[in-house]
Amino acid sequence: MAMDPSAAAQAEDAARRIEEAEAFFRAAPPLRDRDRLAASLADFVARHAAGNRGVVCITSGGTTVPLEQRCVRFIDNFSSGQRGAASTEYFLKAGYPVIFIHRRGSKQPYCRFLPEDSFLDLFELGEDSEIQVPQSHSSVVKAAISNYRKAIDEGLLLKLPFTTIFEYLQLLQMVATSMNCLGHRGMFYLAAAVSDFYVPWESMAKHKIQSAGGPLNMQLNQAPKMLFILRKKWAPSAFCVSFKLETDPNILLQKAEMALKKYGMNVVVANELANYKDVVVMVTSSGRTTVSRSSKEEDLEVQLTDLLVKMHSEHIAQPNS
Amino acid sequence: MAMDPSAAAQAEDAARRIEEAEAFFRAAPPLRDRDRLAASLADFVARHAAGNRGVVCITSGGTTVPLEQRCVRFIDNFSSGQRGAASTEYFLKAGYPVIFIHRRGSKQPYCRFLPEDSFLDLFELGEDSEIQVPQSHSSVVKAAISNYRKAIDEGLLLKLPFTTIFEYLQLLQMVATSMNCLGHRGMFYLAAAVSDFYVPWESMAKHKIQSAGGPLNMQLNQAPKMLFILRKKWAPSAFCVSFKLETDPNILLQKAEMALKKYGMNVVVANELANYKDVVVMVTSSGRTTVSRSSKEEDLEVQLTDLLVKMHSEHIAQPNS
Repeated sequence: MAMDPSAAAQAEDAARRIEEAEAFFRAAPPLRDRDRLAASLADFVARHAAGNRGVVCITSGGTTVPLEQRCVRFIDNFSSGQRGAASTEYFLKAGYPVIFIHRRGSKQPYCRFLPEDSFLDLFELGEDSEIQVPQSHSSVVKAAISNYRKAIDEGLLLKLPFTTIFEYLQLLQMVATSMNCLGHRGMFYLAAAVSDFYVPWESMAKHKIQSAGGPLNMQLNQAPKMLFILRKKWAPSAFCVSFKLETDPNILLQKAEMALKKYGMNVVVANELANYKDVVVMVTSSGRTTVSRSSKEEDLEVQLTDLLVKMHSEHIAQPNS
Repeated sequence: MAMDPSAAAQAEDAARRIEEAEAFFRAAPPLRDRDRLAASLADFVARHAAGNRGVVCITSGGTTVPLEQRCVRFIDNFSSGQRGAASTEYFLKAGYPVIFIHRRGSKQPYCRFLPEDSFLDLFELGEDSEIQVPQSHSSVVKAAISNYRKAIDEGLLLKLPFTTIFEYLQLLQMVATSMNCLGHRGMFYLAAAVSDFYVPWESMAKHKIQSAGGPLNMQLNQAPKMLFILRKKWAPSAFCVSFKLETDPNILLQKAEMALKKYGMNVVVANELANYKDVVVMVTSSGRTTVSRSSKEEDLEVQLTDLLVKMHSEHIAQPNS
């Protein structure tokens, strides 16, 4: 039977995208410590493979795009990692084991309250030179230490750090293919701010670009859209939540709808740079849901993760296709 | 009397550079909190204006160059801030008051030993839920808290944070003009990795650059060389130490010599990305001095700051011109 023309075009498009992704991975500098990371990942997934509970992979923070092979300069994406770190805490609270793929130096779960520059501002030495925390911060710091210890000791939190887009995408591939065995129980919560553009490794300057020669002209290529590959190849049954950040509210929802269809996401969370801590819109195939926090004291992620856990439960209840 | 032609050319070059710098500051987005920063700076300098001790301004970490006005993407310079943070500790130990102009999130004095991702890994709760540090880290953490408290309580450390090249250069100008009254007693230790290229604010995209339109072409302008302005206008009598980092050892020393002459530095510290923690070359008008650390346990900055304190004493002993 002949394929109908639009299905043929779609299949061709998919094949092209998969080839682009494979070319990206072939050319990328190899992930350091790959074997050790793969082993701890396999162990983590195996421990949580039984049962019918969800397991979530959360990505967080911005990726960098090196401009030189011996990297002095790079392009970075703004992202404090606040959303990913907060969401990790709430998914853990909801009983999810969490694989936290995060940018080195970005916000960490249970550390979000920390002063920007120096944790030393939080501590004092007592008379017998014991470490003290001022009364004002004492309960926060103690809760943080205790919650963090619990998550680590119970084997519910696996932290995998990245800096560059090359590291990020290799980690995501590794985690997604490894979580594929979980079927519908796997969830991807893709809050990292991933570069849309990059400089292919082989066309990159080897040494620091010199400034004597006047203005600098750069050409950056589009990065392959790995959401598509994640859905098509790596973990087709998983529940996938991606994020769309824009600074211009006029194009935001339209771009979120587009991402939903194009990459086959279950949910796209649309947020605007100006107020991403206060309000987001969850876009799904059945409509839009606005989520806003009820007070400045509450994290928006409380409601967001709550809704997602419910939707994921329904997704798990479906028979695996 | 007519100027000789090379002096005339030099004066013209200087006038052009100063005009470029002024244009940069006119077009830069204004520094947030400028008045509060200026007040704490004026207070700090006034407190240390008497006496004949040196006062040092240390810059540390990399500057970012925003690519969009509502900044999602930016170009960054690699720099952990390790050198600036370590040097701050040793200058404080030598009795110098320190103005520490640092990149937000870069390494901080007395915190360099911290685990990369999470300070929570350092702490435990005891049986009475008191905060404990494992024996292995106890003395390091306690010394850090005590040294940091001492520097702050004695008013010897002023921390001024920046992120973008616009903030960095405005802070440097503010500090340098304010330290000018110290004459020879002022020292600048310019370890920050400052972008050579930038996108002028007014020519910057207002919103996030869209990725749908194929490859991205960017043109970046050369940033004005503020070392020249620092020496010529802001603080002409100060003792100035700048840093030159290259990835290619073949051009490093030659570029350091050039910077020494071109910007009238007292010392240029030449370092290579591959081994900057182990060895540097101090380039001065009277020759080159190689400084290497004696063991992996010692910071290179122990010897480096020691040599600079001696050279600065000689500089202070000169009559102010």
